[in-house]
Amino acid sequence: MWEKQVLLIPGPTPVPSQVLRAMGAPAINHRGPEFKALIQEVTVGLKEVYQTKSDVVVLSSSGTGAMEAAVANFLSPGDKALVVSIGNFGERFKKLCKIYGVDLEAMDFPWGTAADPQAVARRLAEDTGHQIKAVLVQYNETSTGVLNDIKAISEARGNHPALLIVDAISALAAAELKTDEWNLDVVISGSQKAFMIPPGLAMVSVNARAWEVAAENTNRKFYFDLQAARDSLKSGQTPYTPAVSLFVGLREALRMMLEEGLPAMLARHALYRDMVRAGVKSLGLELLAGDAVASPAVTAIKVPAGFKPADINKRMREKYGVVLAGGQGKLKEDIFRIGHLGYVQPVDLFAAFAALELVLKELGIPVTLGAGVAAVQQVLAERSE
Amino acid sequence: MWEKQVLLIPGPTPVPSQVLRAMGAPAINHRGPEFKALIQEVTVGLKEVYQTKSDVVVLSSSGTGAMEAAVANFLSPGDKALVVSIGNFGERFKKLCKIYGVDLEAMDFPWGTAADPQAVARRLAEDTGHQIKAVLVQYNETSTGVLNDIKAISEARGNHPALLIVDAISALAAAELKTDEWNLDVVISGSQKAFMIPPGLAMVSVNARAWEVAAENTNRKFYFDLQAARDSLKSGQTPYTPAVSLFVGLREALRMMLEEGLPAMLARHALYRDMVRAGVKSLGLELLAGDAVASPAVTAIKVPAGFKPADINKRMREKYGVVLAGGQGKLKEDIFRIGHLGYVQPVDLFAAFAALELVLKELGIPVTLGAGVAAVQQVLAERSE
Repeated sequence: MWEKQVLLIPGPTPVPSQVLRAMGAPAINHRGPEFKALIQEVTVGLKEVYQTKSDVVVLSSSGTGAMEAAVANFLSPGDKALVVSIGNFGERFKKLCKIYGVDLEAMDFPWGTAADPQAVARRLAEDTGHQIKAVLVQYNETSTGVLNDIKAISEARGNHPALLIVDAISALAAAELKTDEWNLDVVISGSQKAFMIPPGLAMVSVNARAWEVAAENTNRKFYFDLQAARDSLKSGQTPYTPAVSLFVGLREALRMMLEEGLPAMLARHALYRDMVRAGVKSLGLELLAGDAVASPAVTAIKVPAGFKPADINKRMREKYGVVLAGGQGKLKEDIFRIGHLGYVQPVDLFAAFAALELVLKELGIPVTLGAGVAAVQQVLAERSE
Repeated sequence: MWEKQVLLIPGPTPVPSQVLRAMGAPAINHRGPEFKALIQEVTVGLKEVYQTKSDVVVLSSSGTGAMEAAVANFLSPGDKALVVSIGNFGERFKKLCKIYGVDLEAMDFPWGTAADPQAVARRLAEDTGHQIKAVLVQYNETSTGVLNDIKAISEARGNHPALLIVDAISALAAAELKTDEWNLDVVISGSQKAFMIPPGLAMVSVNARAWEVAAENTNRKFYFDLQAARDSLKSGQTPYTPAVSLFVGLREALRMMLEEGLPAMLARHALYRDMVRAGVKSLGLELLAGDAVASPAVTAIKVPAGFKPADINKRMREKYGVVLAGGQGKLKEDIFRIGHLGYVQPVDLFAAFAALELVLKELGIPVTLGAGVAAVQQVLAERSE
């Protein structure tokens, strides 16, 4: 009956009331001057968030659509791709490569750990014939809460010409990402993460080198043709009907983001990561990812022995109105996840940990009420000093 | 920049998203069939919440307008009224009586305590000539967080014919109120309290005995003429232009309230009262009101010596996004208040106490982080068993 929730999943994230109001505006013509002004403002803002001077196009799809676009536009059938996988979304890149006839080479790391940039460096150094056309990798692996060292992976290429295609869907604006400075050829993001708007838009940055590759690409695509998107953008349009109200929301969200400023946004997400991890540790629960690779967007926690994620999450939602995520892929029944990106503030985490303590107590797991909250508070208090 | 707040003042209270969406509907003609259906549904719902078969009219004004209407419609110049005052809103009844030429007799009780029904009984018993035409009293005194025993005050009248005019603005639907069973002649409520909609509407129930008094009333009034409101309601209208979007919100809120059910609403508010009081006590702070008379809508807390309410409330709002209220009237600088009525849930109180602990710590007041939250959690855990 009540719609009020503390929504702490790694997307969709809470939508600010300003964005909701903006999205309630009357429909506009997507071929008229209003939309042109809208997409132009949005594009300028996106470039600032992406820290790039290259093109950024917006697709009316979920992030997965943009992952498909990346594979379909920058890899031709028979091309070799190195997919660096550290979790469920790495596996998704593999599936896409198979569907698009790409010669897939997987480099897997255990779920909960980060990719080793040196392993990527060694593999590319071996590839003296430059058979590998692209390296595909997640920045933030949403399923495990691990942040890859994308800068190091980019540098690991050395002089190898392979494109670096980065899934930064749940990372962008939560973790530092310097598209141009780090020489990232293609970077994908999604609307329902740190951009704070509902799902339905995906953003893709493409640099000059990647456009050259796309021009030669032989894969079949239509809706996800990024060159068409780039060309339409020159006249302030999209090739096909865009999700207009989401663009309106994106404009409003970008205004909020740029008003807060990227450094403040990044510091805030790092703070939430540290608050959540301190709270989890203080409750005697085990974190999946190590501190050095921990995500500022989402934290995965091992479910106490004898329980399933639903034992915790169902109670959290139904009794306390706090919505957490379960596991994905092979960790589906082993972890639960707290999303802490986007329109989240410290009091949301206070509320979540107080509720989590009560749920653990209800499940018969020993817990001192208030102890997790205290650890969360302590991190905030120290950071504020 | 962020609009997100944990709003814990004793009105306006948080407005549910369903209500906000409903209020976003296009404007309608307030003299047409849509408004007629609207006000008829609202009136049926209000009678259920008021637990009355008498008339309930809705004024487009704040609760103060309805307090003025009560004085102007049921007391004529020169009539004697007994104003039972336990706080700032009792003082408001006094002001209104003076303005409307009423012969005011004040019966004051110390702020933070409840009225003594036996004192009312004694005074009315002395009034053998029935000079006192009405007793005016708050059910919940918002300024002190004290709940009067309205049932006992009503019974204290015995056979004395004085009308009982009850300001239940912040009480209705948060504290049990049986308009007919308790023989309450006039009961006032307001939209921005447990009704969960923005300010701008006030509701007034009037029973047959009160209408008889109103028919003979000689005070000047036009906008606040309750008989005109009653007569217009017969044709599904209001005498003057109503605040239509607030009526639309009220309809939606009443649907939510009746779906939850009055007993559940009352239990929830009582729970919040107990959670807040346990949290306050555990932090070593002093409550203004005693347990026996504590309000389920708002809790007043004495500000620690050497501090002002703003020292706490400014930090709570600016650093943590938690909005509390200060004091009113003669307690303005002595107390701060936590509102816990309407669209509030336990996690809001967890968040508020975690923030309050941090603020107290910042002010140099000894506090164990998590201790207040633990006390708040404990009450909920026990109530859930």
